[in-house]
Amino acid sequence: MAIFPRLFRRSPAVVAIGGGTGASGLLRGLKEHTDKLTAVVTVADDGGSSGRFRKEFGMLPPGDIRNCLAAMSDGGAALEKLFQYRFEEGDFKGHPFGNIFLAALTRVTGSFDAAVREANAILSVRGRVLPATTAKVSLVAEHADGTKTTGETLVGKVTKPVVRLGLRPEDAPAGADVVEAIESADLVLLGPGSLYTSVLPNLLIRDIRAALERTEAVVGYICNIMTQPGETQGFTAGRHAQVVIDHTAPGLIDFVVVNTGKVPPRLEAAYAAEGAAPVVADMDALNALPGGPRVLCADLVYADSVVRHHPGRLAELCLESYREVGRERARA
Amino acid sequence: MAIFPRLFRRSPAVVAIGGGTGASGLLRGLKEHTDKLTAVVTVADDGGSSGRFRKEFGMLPPGDIRNCLAAMSDGGAALEKLFQYRFEEGDFKGHPFGNIFLAALTRVTGSFDAAVREANAILSVRGRVLPATTAKVSLVAEHADGTKTTGETLVGKVTKPVVRLGLRPEDAPAGADVVEAIESADLVLLGPGSLYTSVLPNLLIRDIRAALERTEAVVGYICNIMTQPGETQGFTAGRHAQVVIDHTAPGLIDFVVVNTGKVPPRLEAAYAAEGAAPVVADMDALNALPGGPRVLCADLVYADSVVRHHPGRLAELCLESYREVGRERARA
Repeated sequence: MAIFPRLFRRSPAVVAIGGGTGASGLLRGLKEHTDKLTAVVTVADDGGSSGRFRKEFGMLPPGDIRNCLAAMSDGGAALEKLFQYRFEEGDFKGHPFGNIFLAALTRVTGSFDAAVREANAILSVRGRVLPATTAKVSLVAEHADGTKTTGETLVGKVTKPVVRLGLRPEDAPAGADVVEAIESADLVLLGPGSLYTSVLPNLLIRDIRAALERTEAVVGYICNIMTQPGETQGFTAGRHAQVVIDHTAPGLIDFVVVNTGKVPPRLEAAYAAEGAAPVVADMDALNALPGGPRVLCADLVYADSVVRHHPGRLAELCLESYREVGRERARA
Repeated sequence: MAIFPRLFRRSPAVVAIGGGTGASGLLRGLKEHTDKLTAVVTVADDGGSSGRFRKEFGMLPPGDIRNCLAAMSDGGAALEKLFQYRFEEGDFKGHPFGNIFLAALTRVTGSFDAAVREANAILSVRGRVLPATTAKVSLVAEHADGTKTTGETLVGKVTKPVVRLGLRPEDAPAGADVVEAIESADLVLLGPGSLYTSVLPNLLIRDIRAALERTEAVVGYICNIMTQPGETQGFTAGRHAQVVIDHTAPGLIDFVVVNTGKVPPRLEAAYAAEGAAPVVADMDALNALPGGPRVLCADLVYADSVVRHHPGRLAELCLESYREVGRERARA
């Protein structure tokens, strides 16, 4: 039980590492609880509108940055809707408006880094959105048979299990302020989001991994609610967490958040048609994870036309876990 | 001499009617002097990026609205630069970012009218920008030989003198709030801007013309500094004003602003190469205009790579004229 009411408690500095649509809900939930929120966002995307910008403009792919800016903006639902609006006709077909906004701002400011900084200001972002790196990076997945798959889009689709994910170049530096944000954080959250294409790409950046090992922040991993065809087909919650630990270090993660709520049957059927299923909470495996992170189970399902984490419940659970771990550490 | 210092003087409600690049400078100047500023902007454009949006999106041409939003935004120079940034590559080549912004907002809000309203809010516009009409209108120029030229782009280029400019449809209604803004204004300014393609198209809308005849506002016409090849080649200041009076009513205009400053020779030569020249202040003709408007002459030249009105000096001259006419009316 907290001794002080919420208003008098110091707002924790939270860093959410991920990107993609999975991150948006978490950020929307977190921004109500802290005024020190940083989103660190992967920029390894090479498909769709982002890929076209990467190719035609030679700029970093804007998609995941766009999602997080929209989620954290104080501009309200109208601005978020505008940012996510995808043109259906003319020269712009298929491009979300927010990507075009970031492309124009990159040209006007002279760099992607400056554009994202400026976007944070223009959109009155509560907290800040930082690209994980400003280098042009590609993902390389190694399979058990020795073959490799290169590029975010292909890695997200390949059905052969990934033994190890890597980044090219291997020494891509962390983006400005990212290391400092992790080092001075109270709470760092990994995920939710596509395991191999949204979460891990950030953790493959050496500076970020080193900062995570140095930081005194409480670190949590939020497991996805649904598997993804190709990427994580058949993965249990334990296997998700094990992959994250394999790509970082045992003992880094203080807690793992796992959904145990039920996905509505009509949605489960729709997902099944695309090869996705609810992630199974395999408690034995979870409780046997290296480093012994706490395992937090809760009903986190928020379902409309798709299944997501409930923004408010997820944020509250993470903050409660952060306080729990903090108290435990204080007792030790 | 004003009795009260500026801070204590009621800020006049000003309506600036025009659009195009000519209007931007005036609006930038005016927004420092009044918090009740309305820009009424023509939407008859059918060329360039605006024309492509008109054709491909079936929406009103956004170009002139964009210019005025950028000029009146409180977002600073960075936002204005972003808004006017014209893509040089990829799918967006030739489109200014601000046009794409208005196109996305039109789709998200469901109408051009709502999009412009929302844009005023998102961009923290000091005052408001209103489309003159939300009907899709075309310009029709009648020549002395009985022939006609249709469409804003062609009307702006035709070298045959225009006897009368008309609008199709003839009964296009004024945009929301436009009539009310004119009726309750203290000062209405026509121009500066392309005579036949930015200024007159607004005055051809019946509701607007009727509101101008009803309003008790002081009305001024700001003559361009340079002629435009085709559109106003060889036009003196007196002829500019006469054309405005011919398309409205004598006695409507209380004052005419005419530049008597000198255009720098190197710029005059550059303009001459394109068929444009400084507008001659033909005082005899100006002083003989029907309705007898005051004629205000001043050095208003602001020249960098192009010739424009000096925003500050122009705004101050207009407001001073407004107060002069007001005092004169009070004495009468």
